[in-house]
Amino acid sequence: MAESRIAIIGTGLIGTSIGLNLCARKGRNFEVVGADRDRSNARLAKKMGALDREVGSLEEAVEGAGLVVIAVPVLAAQAILKEFGKFLAPGVVVTDTCSTKGDILRWADELLPETAHFVGGHPMAGRETSGPGAATADLFQGATWAIAPSPRADEQAVGIVMGFVESLGAAPMYIDPLEHDQYAAAVSHLPLLLSVTLFRMVRDSVGWEDAALLAGPGFRDMTRLASSDPTMSRDIMATNREAVVHWIGRMQEELALVRKAVDEGDDAVLDLFRSTQLDRDTFMVNPPVRRRPEGPELPSAQDAMSRLFVGGLYDRLKEASSRATGGRSANDSELKRKLDMRDEGRDR
Amino acid sequence: MAESRIAIIGTGLIGTSIGLNLCARKGRNFEVVGADRDRSNARLAKKMGALDREVGSLEEAVEGAGLVVIAVPVLAAQAILKEFGKFLAPGVVVTDTCSTKGDILRWADELLPETAHFVGGHPMAGRETSGPGAATADLFQGATWAIAPSPRADEQAVGIVMGFVESLGAAPMYIDPLEHDQYAAAVSHLPLLLSVTLFRMVRDSVGWEDAALLAGPGFRDMTRLASSDPTMSRDIMATNREAVVHWIGRMQEELALVRKAVDEGDDAVLDLFRSTQLDRDTFMVNPPVRRRPEGPELPSAQDAMSRLFVGGLYDRLKEASSRATGGRSANDSELKRKLDMRDEGRDR
Repeated sequence: MAESRIAIIGTGLIGTSIGLNLCARKGRNFEVVGADRDRSNARLAKKMGALDREVGSLEEAVEGAGLVVIAVPVLAAQAILKEFGKFLAPGVVVTDTCSTKGDILRWADELLPETAHFVGGHPMAGRETSGPGAATADLFQGATWAIAPSPRADEQAVGIVMGFVESLGAAPMYIDPLEHDQYAAAVSHLPLLLSVTLFRMVRDSVGWEDAALLAGPGFRDMTRLASSDPTMSRDIMATNREAVVHWIGRMQEELALVRKAVDEGDDAVLDLFRSTQLDRDTFMVNPPVRRRPEGPELPSAQDAMSRLFVGGLYDRLKEASSRATGGRSANDSELKRKLDMRDEGRDR
Repeated sequence: MAESRIAIIGTGLIGTSIGLNLCARKGRNFEVVGADRDRSNARLAKKMGALDREVGSLEEAVEGAGLVVIAVPVLAAQAILKEFGKFLAPGVVVTDTCSTKGDILRWADELLPETAHFVGGHPMAGRETSGPGAATADLFQGATWAIAPSPRADEQAVGIVMGFVESLGAAPMYIDPLEHDQYAAAVSHLPLLLSVTLFRMVRDSVGWEDAALLAGPGFRDMTRLASSDPTMSRDIMATNREAVVHWIGRMQEELALVRKAVDEGDDAVLDLFRSTQLDRDTFMVNPPVRRRPEGPELPSAQDAMSRLFVGGLYDRLKEASSRATGGRSANDSELKRKLDMRDEGRDR
């Protein structure tokens, strides 16, 4: 607990991209430690410069960390929450990047110690290829990052995660976890299933060899999500079943209408194409404005970032440690010294 | 008929991209003339450097052209074929870029004079935005370009279109028009409908305002085709109805199975995601090899390009003209002089 430390659990595309961004900061005042069940992943992340240190156990990874980022598929996150609670420093802020938020918020409340503050997160970012090799420091630039805090997380923890997210270039969006899962089913999970189903069906058709030769950028775009990490996809379906099934059903209804209109040569299809082009172009040119959550209870992003990267983790750990020991922490002067050193090195 | 001339009918994304590529060639020996029903489109194409000359009528556009490229939605192409036959020079090669090939091949045989050689074409290229403003000279680089000649087109005409296509950077793929339409329904027209249907449905849902905030790159990819030109889309559905309806039906069946598997928490979904990721990654890394049509009856692409751009159009026109006048063309010496000038300027 002697250092301002960020732990990344899971060094796939998302975890490694976070690490690359963190480690690239000039004069940073924190250490980035990473672990992955598949150590070759974590070693690659380390080699890429996404980690200061690669460790082989959850215990080593989270020891003394002020911020823990869980970047694994959601069912694996459940296993991690079960396992690592006893290793967490009091006052720690825990966040995640999982695709669904309802279940993980519930699990965090059940499984984490009271002294841990869980603030769920979900970056709306991705790439055709998964794994650390595809990671880039700017993966989150301009992306929405959903934020769903546990009711038990304190305001400062929420502020720290928001600042962390903004410092990665993303736009945090405060959202209820169940609303998140409903909306994500429509804009993310159904599209994923459509992509997979389309590719599988065409790939399995007898004419594939020839059809593939005609497959242009449209087909490649529409099947990109079919290259997503299979475990992540399965976990999404397992933890957002009801909403996903609802949206598949809606899609089936709409497809039946479109099929009928095409079959009958109904000129309504022209209206459909026209209005959809217009609305889709509008959506792309004027994307909806992301309302940053504001309020007296939340620190500004700038404050949060400062707290996180110029002593915030230190302050939290110190405070928690004081509470735990009933007074001044034994090594407070050493911590203070390190904080001062960090202040000298800060770049914002 | 005094010049080696290429006419582009329709200066949208495709026609203007072709023009940009043609006009950018150093020392070229042909003129590029363009026309569009919407003259502001053609004027923009001219201004962008995609045309040497913009004209206001089909007659002016195709007068004396050795190669005519019809780059409009397929129902508009039907109207053009009806109208411009009487203006075509004998021996002219006519090609198109329409999304479906069955109907237009039939129309070309019905509507064009016997002295015209129709070789259907379809570049598997596209872009989010339609219209001349989105055009680029390299739009076709590496793209498959389906080639479906009329049985009435002579071998040289087929060779010219193939050479033309290769000179644009595309890979020509010889295909039966009805096979083309079947395969295109699977890899292009169904994906288009899925994209439109998905966007329309989510856009019309009550939660759109919030859902849109969560829409990341996956949703944007999956709805890119919803920004396609509506008339083009409608014309596709009108001219490939049966195949499109078939593939919507197949998709409905597959979606029903996927929905059931998700609903029941069936671990078969993991197998589905795994095998699909594997096959899709393989498809992207090792795309199917495009077999260039070879055979004694087809000139090599190099020959065809030479014929096209170093006198081929001239030769064809001269030959056809000789046949028409029963001997040497009246202005043959002038044509020969221009050909010589062209030869001096050739860059290959």
